[in-house]
Amino acid sequence: QIDSARLWGSIHETAQFGATQKGGVRRLTLSAEDKQVRDWFRKACENAGLEVQVDALGSMFGLRKGRDMSKPPIGVGSHLDTQPTGGKYDGILGTLAGLELVRTLNDAGIETELPICICNWTNEEGSRFAPAMMASAAYVGDFTTDDILSRKDAEGVTVAQALDSIGYRGDAPVGRQKFTSFVELHIEQGPILEAEGKTIGVVDSGQGVLWYDGKITGFESHAGSTPMPLRRDALATLSEIVLAMESIAKKHGPKAVGTIGEAVIAAPSRNVIPGEIAFTVDCRSADAAIMDALDRDLRAAVTEIAARRKVEVQLDLVWRKAPTHFDPKLVDAVENAAKQLGYSHRRITSGAGHDACNLNTVMPAAMVFVPCKDGISHNELEDATQTDCAAGANVLMHTVLALAGV
Amino acid sequence: QIDSARLWGSIHETAQFGATQKGGVRRLTLSAEDKQVRDWFRKACENAGLEVQVDALGSMFGLRKGRDMSKPPIGVGSHLDTQPTGGKYDGILGTLAGLELVRTLNDAGIETELPICICNWTNEEGSRFAPAMMASAAYVGDFTTDDILSRKDAEGVTVAQALDSIGYRGDAPVGRQKFTSFVELHIEQGPILEAEGKTIGVVDSGQGVLWYDGKITGFESHAGSTPMPLRRDALATLSEIVLAMESIAKKHGPKAVGTIGEAVIAAPSRNVIPGEIAFTVDCRSADAAIMDALDRDLRAAVTEIAARRKVEVQLDLVWRKAPTHFDPKLVDAVENAAKQLGYSHRRITSGAGHDACNLNTVMPAAMVFVPCKDGISHNELEDATQTDCAAGANVLMHTVLALAGV
Ligand SMILES: NC(=O)NCCC(=O)O
Ligand SMILES: NC(=O)NCCC(=O)O
Repeated sequence: QIDSARLWGSIHETAQFGATQKGGVRRLTLSAEDKQVRDWFRKACENAGLEVQVDALGSMFGLRKGRDMSKPPIGVGSHLDTQPTGGKYDGILGTLAGLELVRTLNDAGIETELPICICNWTNEEGSRFAPAMMASAAYVGDFTTDDILSRKDAEGVTVAQALDSIGYRGDAPVGRQKFTSFVELHIEQGPILEAEGKTIGVVDSGQGVLWYDGKITGFESHAGSTPMPLRRDALATLSEIVLAMESIAKKHGPKAVGTIGEAVIAAPSRNVIPGEIAFTVDCRSADAAIMDALDRDLRAAVTEIAARRKVEVQLDLVWRKAPTHFDPKLVDAVENAAKQLGYSHRRITSGAGHDACNLNTVMPAAMVFVPCKDGISHNELEDATQTDCAAGANVLMHTVLALAGV
Repeated sequence: QIDSARLWGSIHETAQFGATQKGGVRRLTLSAEDKQVRDWFRKACENAGLEVQVDALGSMFGLRKGRDMSKPPIGVGSHLDTQPTGGKYDGILGTLAGLELVRTLNDAGIETELPICICNWTNEEGSRFAPAMMASAAYVGDFTTDDILSRKDAEGVTVAQALDSIGYRGDAPVGRQKFTSFVELHIEQGPILEAEGKTIGVVDSGQGVLWYDGKITGFESHAGSTPMPLRRDALATLSEIVLAMESIAKKHGPKAVGTIGEAVIAAPSRNVIPGEIAFTVDCRSADAAIMDALDRDLRAAVTEIAARRKVEVQLDLVWRKAPTHFDPKLVDAVENAAKQLGYSHRRITSGAGHDACNLNTVMPAAMVFVPCKDGISHNELEDATQTDCAAGANVLMHTVLALAGV
């Protein structure tokens, strides 16, 4: 059993880096606050006897030796970056539970056959740079390191510049650190476990993701003197697209979601009909056929709306991540650990994307979920109980012990 | 007849202050660019022998003496500020036509019975500070000077600070400069004159205006893991409000318009359901009963949408300007001038608000319109011909001569 109070303590200690007034965390990837938590994490790993490596995209790997160093380690961990108005648990729980399990093994003097490696993946959240799970995507070869290094945030700062500015552009080439398998603990970020009173989610699949960048070009004009029928209003166009995305997702529901999270009017003014808007779309399903249908329906709706309103709408797919089917043997291992520890559990699909979803394309991977309050995440009010976090960390540790061998 | 080339020259000379790449002008009120054009205007007035006064809200008055200085002058002019992506004519034409008519009278050695005063009213556009036509509204007593001085722009800068920063907080109390009557020349900013092939619009009325500040409070949540039915999406809510405003305006059309010109998502992120949005509404009609209906219908729609979507929507009326009915005798004077000069003309309602609409509540006022290309305004592509601008300036001059007496 891990030390529940120690795990809880480290979660709340790191929550100070980027703490917000409403009790959440604002720790955008590669920001000054991210540097603070990375420095903390590096030191904690070193104090636990781990050797820390940083790769060329800033991902951090803390290695605990095993008896058999000829085999790659079992990977655990998650991420330490957050949304602009994020919480204390999303990503953090998984990373610090990795640290906690190492501390527990150290205290108990337990050696494992295979080594264990705790990971902190760069830019899992995807809100400063697109796509989300950027570093693990590069790790599995979905993008080249150079491509990712050149991605820009809204201010035009590249990933390379951001890494250099906080001193976290490491020496290790991306992908050099190999793993035998990977297990990630995370809060559910959805309402199912809580609603069913289950402690552990045995994650067997994950939704695929479509991300688009959109731009609407209508025509700026005077709000008072331009008759309604002559308008080419970019915001009214966006409004129809937002509602179309919503009804398309509902039509394919409950196995689909669709969201417009960003929309910026160029040169806005109270008495000017909006002429240009940039926006982004996020839509998802765990079913590949539904993903295709979402893409098709969205494009058809956009084409129809644009033609009818005589505006131009550009819609570029900037990221497509296929649905994930986690490794059946690893999923069984997670389920066995939950069973042995006596926790109530159920199989579950992840609504969110995770680094484990990327890693699963090149190695056996699986995930452990614990409930979060009201299913709320990507919100400063995100919350979870100490008991559930500890239960998740115990399942993680026992899964890792089964995989690494004692 | 005024000097068409000289008028055209001064319009294009001032268009350099805040010139944009697309051929428009960005000259927000009380900005550095506004200071440039004000300095130019002051010097041009002084060179034309006028005495320039600046009032406590920065409005500028250039006085040409008359034979009878016991009576207040005939006021002419408009404004020199522009929208963020505005044109070269909106406001500028009226102000510089005032200068041109004085120069013409000077050249011809014509004295008038009453004095003539060219005005440049502060913040007519209303995009940096609300409301629009701010200084003329204070002039007629709709707001106190102190109230207006304390209004803030989006960055929190007050009107007082902005005036001081460009050195245009004048000594003259607001309202001290009296007028016998006021005539404003302006581009139509709508499509009617051009469509009917008329050169002069004899403006007999103006739309009333309702401005609202709105705020939507939904709930931020994960775009991937939050099921569609559980969402409280602020952007989907705004989208319904935008489309409701559009259909309400169309329902009361053609005598009504409604626009959402500004909408800002708080802490936006691609994979976060928007939780909070600030927006503004502009709706108008020349018919007071329709204005009441617009207000009623909009509020009812907002209440219904907010309740159904379980979000909070705050909608505050921040400005209400009643429809304008210009002084019949002055309107006749404009029409007579157009007739005598042989220009094709028609009576017309102003879709936009103008300082003359405010001034009409305390003195006889009227307006002269000239066509603008495709009815486009509040756009960098705003355009008008030299011939039409000169025709408008001639009608303005002959109206003023009739009112001031030669
Ligand atoms: N776990 C999580 O919130 N990841 C962010 C990436 C996404 O799913 O949008
Ligand atoms: N003339 C003009 O564009 N005025 C701006 C105020 C408004 O009508 O919105």
